[in-house]
Amino acid sequence: MPQILNPRVVFSSIPEGPPDAETFTYLEDENIDIETVDLDGGILVEILALSLDPYMRNRMRPIEEPGDMPAFGMNDTVTGFGVGRILRSEGDGIEAGGHIYGFMPFKKFVVFPTTTAMSLEMSGLGLKVLSNPYGLPWHYFVGALGMSGQTAYYGLKDLASPISGQTLFVSAASGAVGHLVIQIAKLQKLKVIASCGSDEKVALALRLGADHAFNYRSSNISEELRRHGPIDIYFDNVGGPTLEAAIENANMHARFVICGMVSQYNSKLSDSYGVRNLWLLSRYRIRRVSYSWYTAKLYIFCTCRMEGMVMTDWAPKYEKEFFDTIPRYLASGAIKYVFHEYKGLESTSLAFANMLKGENTGKTVIILDEDVARPAQGQKEQ
Amino acid sequence: MPQILNPRVVFSSIPEGPPDAETFTYLEDENIDIETVDLDGGILVEILALSLDPYMRNRMRPIEEPGDMPAFGMNDTVTGFGVGRILRSEGDGIEAGGHIYGFMPFKKFVVFPTTTAMSLEMSGLGLKVLSNPYGLPWHYFVGALGMSGQTAYYGLKDLASPISGQTLFVSAASGAVGHLVIQIAKLQKLKVIASCGSDEKVALALRLGADHAFNYRSSNISEELRRHGPIDIYFDNVGGPTLEAAIENANMHARFVICGMVSQYNSKLSDSYGVRNLWLLSRYRIRRVSYSWYTAKLYIFCTCRMEGMVMTDWAPKYEKEFFDTIPRYLASGAIKYVFHEYKGLESTSLAFANMLKGENTGKTVIILDEDVARPAQGQKEQ
Repeated sequence: MPQILNPRVVFSSIPEGPPDAETFTYLEDENIDIETVDLDGGILVEILALSLDPYMRNRMRPIEEPGDMPAFGMNDTVTGFGVGRILRSEGDGIEAGGHIYGFMPFKKFVVFPTTTAMSLEMSGLGLKVLSNPYGLPWHYFVGALGMSGQTAYYGLKDLASPISGQTLFVSAASGAVGHLVIQIAKLQKLKVIASCGSDEKVALALRLGADHAFNYRSSNISEELRRHGPIDIYFDNVGGPTLEAAIENANMHARFVICGMVSQYNSKLSDSYGVRNLWLLSRYRIRRVSYSWYTAKLYIFCTCRMEGMVMTDWAPKYEKEFFDTIPRYLASGAIKYVFHEYKGLESTSLAFANMLKGENTGKTVIILDEDVARPAQGQKEQ
Repeated sequence: MPQILNPRVVFSSIPEGPPDAETFTYLEDENIDIETVDLDGGILVEILALSLDPYMRNRMRPIEEPGDMPAFGMNDTVTGFGVGRILRSEGDGIEAGGHIYGFMPFKKFVVFPTTTAMSLEMSGLGLKVLSNPYGLPWHYFVGALGMSGQTAYYGLKDLASPISGQTLFVSAASGAVGHLVIQIAKLQKLKVIASCGSDEKVALALRLGADHAFNYRSSNISEELRRHGPIDIYFDNVGGPTLEAAIENANMHARFVICGMVSQYNSKLSDSYGVRNLWLLSRYRIRRVSYSWYTAKLYIFCTCRMEGMVMTDWAPKYEKEFFDTIPRYLASGAIKYVFHEYKGLESTSLAFANMLKGENTGKTVIILDEDVARPAQGQKEQ
């Protein structure tokens, strides 16, 4: 078979503020012969879908600047989570025709050499051969069944300590993680308050089961939470003033799951919003005020916990349960997956910029192969 | 016996910023006959020592203003934690001559009616008859053995999850709680970094066992923590820029115990310092950067937990262990108690103002009876 194009996306410009059309560049500068390319004991994968996630904004910095994740190298192929079909395999116990999930370069075809050793080395982020008993679209594995779904599920499992009847507040509630948080929280019989960035997204949050939803751009966040709170659990996807309002309206012994702070990702530290009321984490609260055998009134102390959450920390404990549960709910429609698809690697810059602007609803995903894009059980919003 | 004076302290002025000499007023407007006063089934107590604590700043607001603790009533007798001697008792199983700890009015003598019922009603804050097997000065029970000591002990017990060899950072390290945190942390074989507000306090922190101590007024906090960190545990007594620097220098899976934020207590919310880097709670960190089978580098995710801490939440679990352990350490000198004593109820305003200005070292305590002021095993700093 002849050489065919192996298109890819490189990182091409460090954005000053929000990413734009220059951030990534689509290139058709590589070829591959998929029948003869040397596998070196590994596998050849055709990538079907790639995930765009807000955390990637952190990687768009000068490579010499210290940071929390490795910077994208200038003119290097971008990397992120993807799902692919195994075209050929020399790997141990890995069959051609199977599907695989993991950290991948943004290209059409990729060879992963020495697969088994690699899986070990990459621990939680390693490539994983997928099983799909309900025949869900493969791109679900970078969304509802990938980092987004697992973040929602693990976050609500342990850190949040959900108690039936308590009140959960979720921000970015129509986003990749948020819209799943709403639905899982309702399955846990929590009361759900949702904040979103548009009236359309508010309507979606209500359709997905939120008991109350509001548009943070046109509402007083603290007032909404005062009226419908106090909050026992806050699932934070945005940070900034919303976090401050949530702290202000936290119930005693509230649990805050800090999942992301997308409102802050384009800011330099000096421009970032400062949360001014953290001392309330160890605040004192009145429980009863009627006691008066002398002038003192009766009160109790309370505390609030705020914990950073990243799914890989919890996958070892809950991954099996997740895959035993959520695919079934997605297949039955008990949980609806909302995604915003972009077609082809060439849409990477636009898709990422729109995601950070809040113009996408649900999970942002790049579909490389039309076959996986059928919204069989999913709900497509575009 | 004739009537004798029963001096008291009332709340007399709501401070705009820091409390001052007008905040409290000492009055000699009440008399009591301690032999004949009606006990109504309760007990008559002579108060020996009273505790001044930064949390009391929250109570100095207009009474109609909602807040986290009941406001001090204007011209009402101030209340706080105290220790007293039982002069007479009609209470069930409570003997005259014993000593008692709990929430008390700032006066010389007080009658607590219907003692047993009251104890029940006040739950965690109730009066408690004391046992003192090591003959420690009674005022220790409002300090090293009271809220301060228990806060240090419980905070380091559970929330902090201390692991031998890890690094703890404590702010206000020569304060009521901080100086005990240093010593308990050293018993747990932690490396201790301490920040204080003067060079004298730095010297004290080092004498108490801190591995490194610095004066935050003349140092770059973040630079100090970068050099001696990263931090696995942060015991926060101050909030503000120190908290921000600690977040910046947190190790993976760090635990932040939010005990108090004294730097913020005089501020209105709008003037409060905003912590700008909370998104780092769910930051990503590089563990190894050598992996390069394609352009990706290997990293792992990490999280940081921040939890409000108030001792009453933990007393049910650890109080017995605390009283089995700490009095013995105090008696043997394994833990040194540092306190700053003021004599007489008339010193309340001055003592409180000095405490919030950082002019006291260790625990601030008002001594009403000279007999309990002997620094038998304690170290007195004034």
